[in-house]
Formats: sequence, C-alpha cells, structure tokens
Amino acid sequence: MLNKKNLRHLMVAAATALTLPAMAQQNYKQDSVTIKKIYDNALTSTKSYEDLRYLTKNIGARLSGSPQAAAAVEWSRQVMEKMNLDTVYLQEVMVPHWVRGDKEVGRILNSKLLGSVDANIAALGGSVGTGKQGLSAEVVEVKSFEELEKLGKKKVKGKIVFFNRPFDNTELVTGAAYSGAVDQRGGGPAAAAKLGAVGVLVRSMTNDIQDVPHTGATRYQDGVEKIPAAAISTKDAEQLSSLLKDDANLKFYMRMTSETLPDVLSYNVIGELKGTQKPDEIIVVGGHLDSWDIGEGAHDDGTGCMQSIEVLRLFNELGIKPKRTVRAVLFMNEENGLRGGLKYAELAKARGEKHIAAIESDAGGFTPRGFGLDGTKSQLQTVLNWKPLLAPYGLHEIAPGYGGADIGPLKGQGSVALIGFKPDSQRYFDYHHTMIDTFEQVNRREMQLGAASMASLAYLLSEYGL
Amino acid sequence: MLNKKNLRHLMVAAATALTLPAMAQQNYKQDSVTIKKIYDNALTSTKSYEDLRYLTKNIGARLSGSPQAAAAVEWSRQVMEKMNLDTVYLQEVMVPHWVRGDKEVGRILNSKLLGSVDANIAALGGSVGTGKQGLSAEVVEVKSFEELEKLGKKKVKGKIVFFNRPFDNTELVTGAAYSGAVDQRGGGPAAAAKLGAVGVLVRSMTNDIQDVPHTGATRYQDGVEKIPAAAISTKDAEQLSSLLKDDANLKFYMRMTSETLPDVLSYNVIGELKGTQKPDEIIVVGGHLDSWDIGEGAHDDGTGCMQSIEVLRLFNELGIKPKRTVRAVLFMNEENGLRGGLKYAELAKARGEKHIAAIESDAGGFTPRGFGLDGTKSQLQTVLNWKPLLAPYGLHEIAPGYGGADIGPLKGQGSVALIGFKPDSQRYFDYHHTMIDTFEQVNRREMQLGAASMASLAYLLSEYGL
Repeated sequence: MLNKKNLRHLMVAAATALTLPAMAQQNYKQDSVTIKKIYDNALTSTKSYEDLRYLTKNIGARLSGSPQAAAAVEWSRQVMEKMNLDTVYLQEVMVPHWVRGDKEVGRILNSKLLGSVDANIAALGGSVGTGKQGLSAEVVEVKSFEELEKLGKKKVKGKIVFFNRPFDNTELVTGAAYSGAVDQRGGGPAAAAKLGAVGVLVRSMTNDIQDVPHTGATRYQDGVEKIPAAAISTKDAEQLSSLLKDDANLKFYMRMTSETLPDVLSYNVIGELKGTQKPDEIIVVGGHLDSWDIGEGAHDDGTGCMQSIEVLRLFNELGIKPKRTVRAVLFMNEENGLRGGLKYAELAKARGEKHIAAIESDAGGFTPRGFGLDGTKSQLQTVLNWKPLLAPYGLHEIAPGYGGADIGPLKGQGSVALIGFKPDSQRYFDYHHTMIDTFEQVNRREMQLGAASMASLAYLLSEYGL
Repeated sequence: MLNKKNLRHLMVAAATALTLPAMAQQNYKQDSVTIKKIYDNALTSTKSYEDLRYLTKNIGARLSGSPQAAAAVEWSRQVMEKMNLDTVYLQEVMVPHWVRGDKEVGRILNSKLLGSVDANIAALGGSVGTGKQGLSAEVVEVKSFEELEKLGKKKVKGKIVFFNRPFDNTELVTGAAYSGAVDQRGGGPAAAAKLGAVGVLVRSMTNDIQDVPHTGATRYQDGVEKIPAAAISTKDAEQLSSLLKDDANLKFYMRMTSETLPDVLSYNVIGELKGTQKPDEIIVVGGHLDSWDIGEGAHDDGTGCMQSIEVLRLFNELGIKPKRTVRAVLFMNEENGLRGGLKYAELAKARGEKHIAAIESDAGGFTPRGFGLDGTKSQLQTVLNWKPLLAPYGLHEIAPGYGGADIGPLKGQGSVALIGFKPDSQRYFDYHHTMIDTFEQVNRREMQLGAASMASLAYLLSEYGL
C-alpha cells in the first residue's frame, strides 16, 4: 500500500540512489533496517528513562567531590556491570571539591523605589565566600569588559560589579547566545578584582526572564584577589538594573559561605563492547556524570550519560556486534575542572589508543536535530554520505560544529573526529545549572530519540570507520 | 570575519545558486533579509506570548458555547482591532453546546487484588451522562473493533466496553500514533452500543503513562443508543487491564452528568491585511479559538491563534505590505463540530473568494520542523524552491502532508493549497485535551519560532503566489 510513510521511504531511497557512493549503496538497505530497529527498540524501552529517574531522584545533584558524585560513580558502574559488556572499569582522577555552603542571601538595600528587597542569587562555582557576616557595597553595572575598563579603579574600587549583558535572543541556536554572554561569568570576577571590586554579580545565563539563578564556573587569575561572585536571576537582574538608575544610596548585600576543600579521588566510568574486526579502533559515546549541586542535573548531563549507556544496551539487545570498539564514557568533573576529560585523553595517549571518533551528548535530552563535527572535510563528507539514513529520523543538521567539552582534550590524537550530538536548543537554557533542571523537564521520547540517534551514528562508524 | 555563522550563510547561498530558478535567485537576497527580520522581530517581541498568557490564564478553557469562548471571541477581536489592520470582523456561526457537568467519578470495584480504587476519567465530548446515581457494570476489554465484533452481543450486553489499544510508540511522529488509536474514541461508543453495552471507557490518547485523562470528541450514530463514554488515564487503563485478568467480580463505576444543550451563536474572528497588488488572492493563517473545557487550551490551540495574529503584527511592524491579502482566521468549534471551519468555507464559496493557500497551526507551539502540503505537485515544488530560505531556520521537512481540520473544508475551492505548520511532535500528546495543557508548558522561543515560520511562508506566498 502506498501510504505517506511508504512514499517517504521511497523518496529517501530515490535520493539515496543519487547521492550515495557505490559501496554504501550496497549496504544501504541493511543499514536502513538496522537503524529502524535501533529507533523502534529505543522508543519502546523505558530502561534508560527509568535509569535517569534513579540518577536524578535517588542520587540527585552530584557535584565533583560530593558523596552524590561518588554514589553516581558506583551506581552507574553497577548499571553497566549488569549489561553483559566486554569491559566495565573505573578510571581514577583527582577532582576539585568546591562546596556551596549555606543557601546564599542576596538583598537590594535602600533603593529609592522599593526600599530593601530580596534577590535570588547563587554562588558561582569556585567562588570564595563572603565571610559569615556577608558584605554590602554599592553596585556598578556594566554590559562589557570594555565598559568596566573605562570606569577604571576609581569608580570600581570597593564596589560590587554587576555584569548585566543579556543573551542575544535573535540567535537561533541558544548555545550561540550563551557563547556571547558567558565571558561575564568566566572572566568577570577576575577583571573586576583587578580594579579593586569587592564582589561580583553576573546576570544568569538564560534567554528566559526567571526567578531562578543559574550557577556555573568562574575562573580566578593567579595573583589577582579572589572576590565573591554570584549569579543573579534574570528577573532580579532586570529589577536591580532598573532600580540603579540615579539611585546613589542603593547597595547590595550578599552572603555566601562557599569554599574550596582539598581535591578528592573520583572516577570516569567506562563500559565497552569490543570490536569484532578492528578492536583497536575506538568510538566513544559519552556525557558527563557530574552536575552542579543544585537541581538534579537531568538535562545537564544525566540524559547524556544515560543515552551513552543506552547505545551499548541497544547494540546488545539487537545483537549488533560492532566491527570497531564502542565505548561509553561517563566523564567526571566537566562542570568545574574538566579533569575527567583531561585524564581520559592523557591515558588514551599514554596507552597509544586509537580513537577514530568521539560523540558527546551534553546539550540536553531534547529532540534530535543533527550532529556537529569537528574534524576533517573528508570525515564530514563521510558522515554526510550517511545523511539519507539519518534524515528520516529528523537528523537534518550535519555540519561542521563543536564536539563537546569532555572529548575536547582528545583533539589532535591521531585523526579522531569530535562529534557533538545536537538536540533542539530552545529549552536548554531555561534549566541549565539551576534548581529546575529536574527529571520532570525531560520528555521520555525526546531522550529516547537522542539515544537512538547516537546509536545509529555509532553503528555506522563501527561498520565503516571514518 | 568568516565565523561559523557566516560560513553557514555562504553554504546556503551556494546551495541556492544551484537550486533556485532564475527569478527566485534575483529575489533571494531580498527575501533572505526580510525573513531574517521576521525571525529577529518575533524572537525579541513578547507581545504574542503575553497575549497567550492572557488567553490561557485570564480567560482559560473555552469550549464552544461557554462564556469563556464568548470572552475569547471578544478579547481576540479587540486585540486585532488595536493592530491597525485593514479589516477586523466576526463571522456568525451556530455551535454545539455540550457541558461536562460535575467532575466525573470513576472507580474500579471489587478487584481481587486491590479491592475498590479510584480511576481518573473524563467524559468524552458529546457524551451523555450516566444519571446522578452513576452506573456500575462488568468490564470487557478489547483492543480493536474486530475483537469487539467477535465477542458479540452475548458477551457485551449490559457491560462497559473498555477500548485499550495503546499508541504505537515506534511511530516517529506522534500524530501518526494518534491516528492509529483515535478510532476507538470516535467510533467506540457507537460500536459498543450496537452490541448492547451500557458504557464505554477509552484509553487516553497519549504516548505517556500518566494520571490525567485525555478528553476529546466521540460520535454517536443515528438510531444507535447513546451510552456514556469516558476517557481513562493511561496509568489507570494499565491498572484496570492488569486487574481484569481472571477477575469475575470486578466492576467499574462511572458517574458523569454531562449533557448537550441547545446550539449557541458564536463567531470566527477574522483580521486581515489587504494585498497591495492582488487583493483578491487570499492567504489564510489560522488556528482554532475554542478548546476543550479542561486545562487552558494552551498548545491546543491557543498558540496557533496567537501565532496567526502574530503573523499580521510582524507584517505591520516590519512595514511589509503584502502583495496578496493575508488573513488571520481564529476558527470557532474545531474540537466538537468544526462548525467554524465549515461556515468559513461556505461563506468563502458563496462570496466567490479566491483562496490560494491556507496555513493552519494546530499541532502545538513547539519548535518548528516544517510544513505539510495538501495540494498539487507544482504547488509543492514551488514551496520546495523556497527551502533554501527556510531550512536555515530549522524548516527542513517540507513534504506532502495534512493541512488542518479548520482549513479542510476549503479543499477543492479553486486551487487552494492546504498547508499544515509542523512543529516537533514529541510532547504534544503529553498535554493534548488535558488539564495540563497550560501556559507553563509553552516555551516562549518555540512559540515565537513557529509564528516566524508561518510569517515567512505567508510572506513568500504573498510575494509570489502559488
């Protein structure tokens, strides 16, 4: 019967006949069947989604060095141990151990219009505390580092610098808007400290106007004083900015008891299926197991980890014996140090491992859009040749792009291609690094489709190399 | 500077040079600039989103014939009146007036395992009530009409028939899974009544396993007894099915006081920008203003209505004078009668109006994927020629497809093309026809992108015709 669905398959087949090289054409039919099986199985198994529920609800937020991070390591190791893989192991890595301490207090003081009102703040990861008494100071607002430089020491000394450059909402991909604003969070505190500021507030990294503050790492500089730095919710940032107009008496009070403790031993968690023909050629699928300490780290990056494990489950369940080795890596400490990614690359190099590709899922468990590839033209062309197999599943956007933070340190080892799984980006920064990045925000099907997308690409890579 | 963004634009331009016909190439650059302006404006204006907030939070659910539906008509008319359009008017239409009555009671009685437990049910739209005492009867479960027929009168008479065929989760587009299950809701009660059933339960139309029941219209047949029919939540459907195994004493109690009152006068709400060159050629953008009476009708179809109005706002705001007439139509009574769509088509015919295309948004305010076109091959080819202008915004899926319920009755009037705006489908049936189809489930950016997608296509249609 020629219904719409058949028609689509015919059209895809027709397009394929025109675009695929000869060898790929031969295999096209079989690959097409395998990929359909991958999606069917992923969409009807709730294993991965229920695992995410356990990780987020029973373990919860899991910042590097925390008991929850240790629990997540042991639990995910056990999850993979039960899966009949060829190898499951831990990879030791020393990680930073920063703790938030008490719930932060933020308060606008003595404003002309509203008097004193609370503001939602969250210490930036790595920030020093204010001392138990907190600190209050006048606020100076800037939108850029240039503006800050122009103010100079005279106008900055003794004050709290408030970085308030918003996301550019005209960016279609929200990650681009993030890239255009996150320098304030990373570099703001050090730049302000150089001019004598006593504290920093950074507008939260989100497109949305919300009550919840978005935490995230900041970087101090050697030789520059470490001053307390917090994210302020976008709603409160708007209010603070509005109140600051011609208001000489306004001050801001912030209290944070965050501190950095000695490094802690932790682990990357690794499971793999050995390649049947070229076991030495390795394809990584990965995400990061650590999360920030607020919320549940559901989209960032519980989904990426569970999807990576799901790739192996799908191979096993469907009896796919990969020709090349497929390895799931749950990296530790992406959020505040990247020590897991660095350690993984260091050991891969020391052992002379040959990675041909690494796929990272760290942009949320949303509906799939495609893959970004950081590699050679010829690698990109190979993946583009597979597009007729992938586009029917919504994977239209296969283009040069960013791989991922954890796989980044592999760059330059042989000819490894770094591949970022690209889900739809619109909702990611509603939740990113907040208390509302919870299991409830993950749609089961969207997450399943992501895992199937990664598994399909990993399957093609394992069959044909790159 | 050749950054990633420029590179993408160059690639699109290169692709365009190869695929666009000559005339379109000339206009490509200008159209590309206009479409970018449309997206930029849509993504930075919160007008439409705030209008949706008003519609959902201040007016709320608005079933045909209800005071809220009347309020929605008057409010949306006023919204358009304030917009400096060429015409705003109401189109009279008599609509059914069904009321749900008291909150329904559903209860599994005397099960072996759990005794008596509550079950979440919602009367199907159009259903008769049970009488104030409710009814209780044994339950017979079926997955198909064939199975029901096989049981025959002997096994069905006096019982509640429970239609429990689930969504097929392997369908990529959830609408296809809906199509494969919704016959139970539409035709189940009449089929069961023919065999002497006293009531019907239908498994809710959703991929998810949830507590909330999904209402929706059922159709009785002339000459067949009207028996009470309700949707049961998928979670309770699973439980009921499980309890039914070898349980001779199990009964189900249902109480519903729903009833159908006399028809009520209501309206389609219409606003338009007259074409500067071919005012007689009409392009409709539309959604339906009515919703079910539970929840807030946010995705179904508040977003479609607000997006349709937003198309006109974008044209006005950007100074786009359409060559052909662009008309926003908020149809009344899609959910339980389609009287608005029928009346619109009837009057269009009577007046000899020439519709060249109608775009409907009635699949939720989710991130855009493309358009489905119900029209001729040459119409499809024309829209495909515009794909290089649309694909950079994520509109990759331009293919033959379903237009929409409200615009359906226009079919066959001249050579009108019926075009369905296709957002991502994964989450739609989590909310569809439930108490959780609320404003909170709508992501501002996803909704804005949908409006921009409709406006961009309407712009191209208004420039070039079809």
